[in-house]
Amino acid sequence: MSGAANDSVRDRIIEAATAEFARFGIAGARIDRLAKAARTSKERIYAYFRSKEELYEFIATRELDAVSAATELDASDLPEYAGRVHDYFVAHPDSRRLVRWGELELAETSPSAKAIAARKIATLKQAQKDGILDPSWHPLDILVMINELATAWADQIDVAPADEQARAAFLADRRQAIVLAVERLFPRRHPDETRGTVR
Amino acid sequence: MSGAANDSVRDRIIEAATAEFARFGIAGARIDRLAKAARTSKERIYAYFRSKEELYEFIATRELDAVSAATELDASDLPEYAGRVHDYFVAHPDSRRLVRWGELELAETSPSAKAIAARKIATLKQAQKDGILDPSWHPLDILVMINELATAWADQIDVAPADEQARAAFLADRRQAIVLAVERLFPRRHPDETRGTVR
Repeated sequence: MSGAANDSVRDRIIEAATAEFARFGIAGARIDRLAKAARTSKERIYAYFRSKEELYEFIATRELDAVSAATELDASDLPEYAGRVHDYFVAHPDSRRLVRWGELELAETSPSAKAIAARKIATLKQAQKDGILDPSWHPLDILVMINELATAWADQIDVAPADEQARAAFLADRRQAIVLAVERLFPRRHPDETRGTVR
Repeated sequence: MSGAANDSVRDRIIEAATAEFARFGIAGARIDRLAKAARTSKERIYAYFRSKEELYEFIATRELDAVSAATELDASDLPEYAGRVHDYFVAHPDSRRLVRWGELELAETSPSAKAIAARKIATLKQAQKDGILDPSWHPLDILVMINELATAWADQIDVAPADEQARAAFLADRRQAIVLAVERLFPRRHPDETRGTVR
């Protein structure tokens, strides 16, 4: 079997595992159902990933990296960053569900999630030093609050109207409120505007 | 068997079900394990509750009512309301977990959760009419944002330090940030202060 074919089995496993974990969580995921969806065997899955937990960790890390890359934390414009995070999760509800299962089912935040948070906190700290972000907030609070506000609607999407047009209008209003709230809490500032005025 | 004894079996079922659902979720909950923890039988449980889903719905509604009663939405002081919600969930992590499992496992927000939200939205709308709350926000956004900010730490309590004293100080700091954020977004106003100044 060629390397390309191997890759494609692995890709199918990853795709099917993302859907399986998003729907059923970690305890609820079934490797035999996943194997069927990926058109492979349990044995092949365990050749790539030693356990269901290891497979979940891989999938969740992959999703967290995808979110970070797609939304890109910009400390000079946190309101619009929050808007992007909202957009991302509304468009990718499975991505959010994946992470939420882990929050409930695993005793600890995963090392990869912690590493991503640490990088973001370092970015926010630097922005505080550079005078583009109010230094009186703990950067952890800034990160967590923005995340909470931006993910609110992906977590309760069933509250949105079912009709496509009404739903789009509803979510646009919620997005606007999120951007406005983050603007009130952590306003956009141009560096030149504030440099020297903030310690 | 006396009525009191019946009640006590039911109470034990409720207590054990709260712990079982909080730990394992709805799909993961096992009625036989629950029966053992409640020192009763599966048959007795099904005499009180027709299905596992019905039992979950009962327990989740009971918890939502308990949170509402303990935290009491006061539209004239939303920052302190957010502080109370934070305190409640930090003290009752099982209560928050119970609700979160339902968010992931059930297709729709429960009728009881919708009813509680509708009552709170009516309270906020009235406060906007009375001039004690900025009417430019949609009351749904006010409710959801406060809820998101106030529940942030119950959802990731493992990030807090393990040492009891350090943990208390950490959570007090997070609480202060939540109260300050809500104050910035939805400031406390005395009715006399603003009546007439807001449409």
